[in-house]
Amino acid sequence: MAERKGTDSLDRLHRRAKALTGMPVTRRDAERALAACLSDSDMWTVIRHSHAPLRYTTCLWDLMEKEGLLTTQDGRLTLTEEGKSLAEALGIGPPMTFDCPHCDGRGVDVSSGLLKSLLERFRQIAQERPTALQKFDQGYVTVETTIARVAVAWAKGDLTGKSVIVLGDDDLVSIALALTGVCRNVLVIDIDRRLIRFIRQVARSERLTNLEAREHDLRNPLPDAWLGQFDTFLCDPTESFVGFKVFIDRGLLALKGAGSAGYFGLTRLESSLSKWQRIQQFLLSRGAVVTDIRDRFHWYENWDYVEKMRAWDWLPAKERPRDIWYQSALFRIELLRTPRISNEPVVGDIFTDNEAATT
Amino acid sequence: MAERKGTDSLDRLHRRAKALTGMPVTRRDAERALAACLSDSDMWTVIRHSHAPLRYTTCLWDLMEKEGLLTTQDGRLTLTEEGKSLAEALGIGPPMTFDCPHCDGRGVDVSSGLLKSLLERFRQIAQERPTALQKFDQGYVTVETTIARVAVAWAKGDLTGKSVIVLGDDDLVSIALALTGVCRNVLVIDIDRRLIRFIRQVARSERLTNLEAREHDLRNPLPDAWLGQFDTFLCDPTESFVGFKVFIDRGLLALKGAGSAGYFGLTRLESSLSKWQRIQQFLLSRGAVVTDIRDRFHWYENWDYVEKMRAWDWLPAKERPRDIWYQSALFRIELLRTPRISNEPVVGDIFTDNEAATT
Repeated sequence: MAERKGTDSLDRLHRRAKALTGMPVTRRDAERALAACLSDSDMWTVIRHSHAPLRYTTCLWDLMEKEGLLTTQDGRLTLTEEGKSLAEALGIGPPMTFDCPHCDGRGVDVSSGLLKSLLERFRQIAQERPTALQKFDQGYVTVETTIARVAVAWAKGDLTGKSVIVLGDDDLVSIALALTGVCRNVLVIDIDRRLIRFIRQVARSERLTNLEAREHDLRNPLPDAWLGQFDTFLCDPTESFVGFKVFIDRGLLALKGAGSAGYFGLTRLESSLSKWQRIQQFLLSRGAVVTDIRDRFHWYENWDYVEKMRAWDWLPAKERPRDIWYQSALFRIELLRTPRISNEPVVGDIFTDNEAATT
Repeated sequence: MAERKGTDSLDRLHRRAKALTGMPVTRRDAERALAACLSDSDMWTVIRHSHAPLRYTTCLWDLMEKEGLLTTQDGRLTLTEEGKSLAEALGIGPPMTFDCPHCDGRGVDVSSGLLKSLLERFRQIAQERPTALQKFDQGYVTVETTIARVAVAWAKGDLTGKSVIVLGDDDLVSIALALTGVCRNVLVIDIDRRLIRFIRQVARSERLTNLEAREHDLRNPLPDAWLGQFDTFLCDPTESFVGFKVFIDRGLLALKGAGSAGYFGLTRLESSLSKWQRIQQFLLSRGAVVTDIRDRFHWYENWDYVEKMRAWDWLPAKERPRDIWYQSALFRIELLRTPRISNEPVVGDIFTDNEAATT
């Protein structure tokens, strides 16, 4: 009886938030948003646990607050007794985490052997990195994340003796790749002149002779010299569907063909599972297969422009985050054939769609 | 020059092995098979590292042996100097592993807290389990794997307060699920009467009142009482494409709809990436999205019938494996809508296709 009432209540809130935001979410996202409120009262921790589009969850929490199911104060987001009863009636418990403390759940050991020394050298270099800029939708991952990503690509055989291209690189993954010493060559392209300058400087000072950095706006076609030349691409695309496709298509254009691989990140905060599905359809249509999806693999350092991001207005409490809250999955794809992709210029805003939160 | 010659040589071997086996592989699989030979000389370790269809790699190794690129003796598979030169000319190095030693690369900590006690209790229970039978394509994962799989589902919110169905259960995952105490109810169905009897006995002795075990052949339609009743399904399908679809479709039929989740395993040894791609197309066409693919998550205990499996004839050396060699990826899918699936009987052999190795 309590369960039935709870179900009706959550259904109603979900339908209302879905209608208000126009987001392609399911009721399961409402469950995730509610369960997240049982994790902690720090708003950013709740957001991290929610694992659902921020555009929608912030609306749902707003509706819940109006109905007395939760309160927000001093950056804290707390379920009221009524809110807790709702969760209980629905059999919803707090999110559980069983992440391995040794590798933060990534499954990759960066604390010993080869990777340890790579990490230490990279950490040293990255101290002087340029700050993240909103105009390029930047926001970089922790140094441990970058090294773990390189380790995955290495273990998959996508680095040794291979030509690697990095499309957009505020994570400085190109430097970490070159530091492994196993790639045939590494080309990094970025729209941001600061990053190109920084990477070139590091390449010189660290004597990374096979690392080349070139300024390039991915909205422009790739030069012929880069087409079909690489075994592996890595990127961290902007998550609007149109922007995502631009990044991936440029990456695929740079690949040699069947057997070449690509890596990218994808969040649950800025991409609904419906968008994930469209992305997967897109990847398959390009002749790729998805070989790996490691959820919550990428942990992002907080960026300066948090108050200026689109989602700031939606937040139930206007507090800056202290800990890591923004995570994304690591995808690996492998090509089974050479896709036909146009190398045309792309015009207009590629950064924003209805689900975007940080642009 | 050496590289060009090496490329031609590997190309030729690859094309020949592909033609002889009729497998939908790419030249990248030849690279993986060659790189694996640099890992170790234990044949089963080489097979584990190859991460490509066994039907094809065994044929490739056979051709390599005939051309003096490798030798097999006493269950060992060793590259000759010529074989090593080929790898070197192609820039192919030995497979690298950076798996976290604490969690065996699964990212899940089963050695402390809740999971530790769950693991110990489960290990105790599983000691008396029935042996794996070839006629049902059985072969079970390690107890650590079973607990880690349960932990992933728990962390994803697919267990707490949820109705869970397990389709085929030589892994005894239904018992581990019931032991968590958080599922609303667990139904396990299996064709194998021995397993049903064993699980019922455990349910009684461990007082797992919400665990129900029913004998059922998945080739038969699901009874109406199970249709649309579950939030989560778990299974480890036979890997012929037709058999795989039968397992997944029955699982999807048992689910409530949008927001429900499914888990299954998929290998690279018995499924080419081309089959992976067809499987992903199939899943998307059913209204599901793939949320997780954790490669090499499942580690299988060796089974008794190794000499009787289809792949035995193909093996370059007839030696029984000592260590774990058979692994599979853990997939999680989530439904975004209720799919239309027929609940008809399936006739004929669902266990074998050209890529099958263990049936």
